[in-house]
This record gives sequence, C-alpha cells and structure tokens, in this order.
Amino acid sequence: MPRYRLDIEYDGRPYAGWQRQDGPRSVQEAVERAVKGFCGETVSLRAAGRTDAGVHATAQVAHVDLVRDWPADTVRDAVNAHLQSAGDSVVILAASMVGPDFDARFSATGRRYLYRILNRRSPTALEKGRAWWVPKPLDAGAMQEAAQELVGRHDFTTFRSAQCQADSPLRTLDRLDVSRTGDLIEVRAAARSFLHNQVRSMVGSLKRVGEGVWNAADLAAALAARDRAACGQVAPPDGLYLVGVDYGADRPSNA
Amino acid sequence: MPRYRLDIEYDGRPYAGWQRQDGPRSVQEAVERAVKGFCGETVSLRAAGRTDAGVHATAQVAHVDLVRDWPADTVRDAVNAHLQSAGDSVVILAASMVGPDFDARFSATGRRYLYRILNRRSPTALEKGRAWWVPKPLDAGAMQEAAQELVGRHDFTTFRSAQCQADSPLRTLDRLDVSRTGDLIEVRAAARSFLHNQVRSMVGSLKRVGEGVWNAADLAAALAARDRAACGQVAPPDGLYLVGVDYGADRPSNA
Repeated sequence: MPRYRLDIEYDGRPYAGWQRQDGPRSVQEAVERAVKGFCGETVSLRAAGRTDAGVHATAQVAHVDLVRDWPADTVRDAVNAHLQSAGDSVVILAASMVGPDFDARFSATGRRYLYRILNRRSPTALEKGRAWWVPKPLDAGAMQEAAQELVGRHDFTTFRSAQCQADSPLRTLDRLDVSRTGDLIEVRAAARSFLHNQVRSMVGSLKRVGEGVWNAADLAAALAARDRAACGQVAPPDGLYLVGVDYGADRPSNA
Repeated sequence: MPRYRLDIEYDGRPYAGWQRQDGPRSVQEAVERAVKGFCGETVSLRAAGRTDAGVHATAQVAHVDLVRDWPADTVRDAVNAHLQSAGDSVVILAASMVGPDFDARFSATGRRYLYRILNRRSPTALEKGRAWWVPKPLDAGAMQEAAQELVGRHDFTTFRSAQCQADSPLRTLDRLDVSRTGDLIEVRAAARSFLHNQVRSMVGSLKRVGEGVWNAADLAAALAARDRAACGQVAPPDGLYLVGVDYGADRPSNA
C-alpha cells in the first residue's frame, strides 16, 4: 500500500480548522473528499499541524495511504482538480511517494509558524482575514527583545489553551523573532512542537509589550506564573500561517 | 469649499471597477456613500486611475470637495468607519487638505501599476483573485528583455481596448520591468498615463514571450502593427494593482 506525502497550502477562512469533525467543513475532509473523487478510496489523512479555524498554511504536510500505485504527480494534479471543482481554497503543492515509516505528524522534528500583524491606523482592504489589524502603534523592537524571554525550554501553561490535550506543558521554543517592514510586523516561531493556541497566545502577549503596557520583565513573569490567567489577549487566527514542517535530524531551527 | 486628497486601498473583487455606474457596485460609489454617511453631503469623487472590474489598488488617489472644514484625520477615520460598517473592501489610507488647483486626475504626472503572475504547476489557495495563475513555466528573463521593446513613446493601438476613449493612442511608457521571486513574477509598469487595458494587454503578450511562443522581435512587430488583432491574450484583472500616482515635476519613473 503506497504512502504519499502531500504538501498543502490553504486559506483557512472557510474552514473550521484542519481536523475533520461533524458538521462544519474542515481542510482534512476537503482533501479526503478530493482523494475519494479521484480514486474512489475512502482515506484518512494525518497532518503535521492541526491548525485551528481560520488559520492558514503555506506548507502543511500530511500523509495518505492509497491502494493503487499512482505516479505522485498524478496524485497532485488529480486531487487539485477535484479540490478546484469543489471550490475549496486548498491546494496540493507537491505529492511524493514515501516509505511506510514516514508519518507526517510523528516524524516531524520541527514546526514553523508565521504571524502577520498589520499595524497602522487605517483598516485593511487587501489583508482581511489574512493579518491581525492593530491600529495602535506597536514597538516591534521592544517586542523582539521581550520575545527572547520565551525562547528555550519552559513550562508554557500560561500560553496554552484550556482545551489543550498535550500531556505536558513543557516545550522547547527554538525561535521567536519579531520584525517590522513598513506597516507589517512579522512574528516567526519555531519549535519541535507547540501547545494548542501557543503561538497566538504568545503573540497576544507580545502585542501588550508592543503597546508599552508590558515590558520584557512582565512577559517573563507571565511565563513564570504558569497560569493561563496571566496571558494577554489571544491573537485572532487571521494572521497565523503554518509555513514549514521539518523532518530528519538536521532541523533548521532558524529557517 | 475645502478640497481633500484621499489615498485609497481596495480589493477590487466585489466591484465593477472604480467608476460609478447604474446597477453594479463601484469603488467610487462606495466612497461617495461613506462620505454622505459621515457628513450628509452628496459628493462626486475624481480619481487618478479609473481601474476596471476586479482590479485592485494599494495607492489610488482621489479628491473630493466638502462644504465644511473638517480635520483631515477626521475625514479619514469617519469615512473608514462608514466603509467598514457597509462591509466594503475599500479603505482610506490617508486624507489631506489640498489647494483648489489640485486635481487627482489632471494633476497626476505619473501612474504606476504592478501585475502579479503566480507561475507554478499547482493552483493557488491564498492568492485567488489576487494574481494570475499561469501553470506553464515562463521565462521571466526573456519577458524582461522583450519588455524593453515597449518602453518609450509609441502608438500603442495594439495594446489598447476597443472601448478605449482616449483621443490618441500615443503614450510614453517609462518603465516595464519583469522580475521573478520564487513562483511569483512581478511586472512593474510606469507612465504618465495609460490607455484602457494597456497594462493587461502588454502582460498578456509578455506571457506569450515567457512561454517561448513569441520572441522579442515578435513583440516589437505586434507593437509596430498598430492593430488590436496583433495583441496576445489580455491578462485577467486579478493580478493588477494600481500602486502609485505621482504629482509634481519630480516624477520618480523608476520608483
């Protein structure tokens, strides 16, 4: 039974998130339906990152087992044709045959996220649903400095959704970088894995630093509190993108 | 009667173009309705570029005369509030008071457009309606070389819509540059003014060069033909953005 790795891009706005669920549309279900449309097989995908409702991806990775041995490019093109005709905002960027030991979720050694903040007085016409609009001026330099308090191995209970199902709140954050280009502030986060809502929770607290309400010491204190109530506002899903999944030992933590 | 310059951003997808018309929604009408909502005045805007249906702008410029003398920032914020509550994808980036001799259309000394082509095998999930998806590989270097055939003062009849109402088909194209970054090809065009559909017509013919169907001499011959029938496919509106309008003598033609 050949296994395929699928690299997937999506606009998360129309979806209730990656994961299949009863009722609302999900990205997983859209791809599974397209696979069925293409080859008639009822499949179950597993992905590296179970993104939330409204969260986007430029480089989600999933795997799927098919009965028949199709050329990988045929899988890509045929699944795309079915996604397009269903009106889904989901695209297979690449398909490749992988060994039976490849697991998109459990083989992943790193996940990378980008969070985009549009920081200007005027609302956005072209970035609606694709960035967090923050009208109050933010000090990106202060955000970058404070962000380094969160890098490393910590108990991230403060920055974890109450619904998080992970066994442990301990995670190693490899990178949390804040930079500004014009009106756009980009936050780049990398770790082996993240807790539920961790990136959005960290970004919401960094915004508090950018506004001058918190300083770096306040952010460090929030982390040390290990208390969800110490977290700032959770940033909306609009600005969040899964932009990379790493496999293998040579994880580029600064890519 | 104070005159205001408005710098405007919009996602052109929901609109039948800039210009007010009977029936379909237009960007002009959206702003005029928002101005009326704010101050009760029925106004008529004039813009630098009358963009077509589905064409976007990051820096359209228009002017409007109001009876009352409002602070410019109040105009910006109040018009934005009305645009947002109407669900319009139009935003006032800046408002400023200008003299009675400023005319957004007739004072403009330069217009700059960007055309975005997504050139990859897979369709797009995140750039739908915001770029032209071309699956066949294009040679951006060949496009850039050929584009220089169009720069300068020419009769652009070949690259002009049959509906174009300009008196003369003569225009001076200051810049037409093609560059690639990954899957994205950007075409940047600058001129004092453009004919109707000129940018999209030039881009459609440049695509023919990128595919290898035409070379630079073919593009030059199409220009020299002064015949609309010699034009390649007209590129769709999705990828076109009005990105700058220049005023004054010091027109930065390479900006």
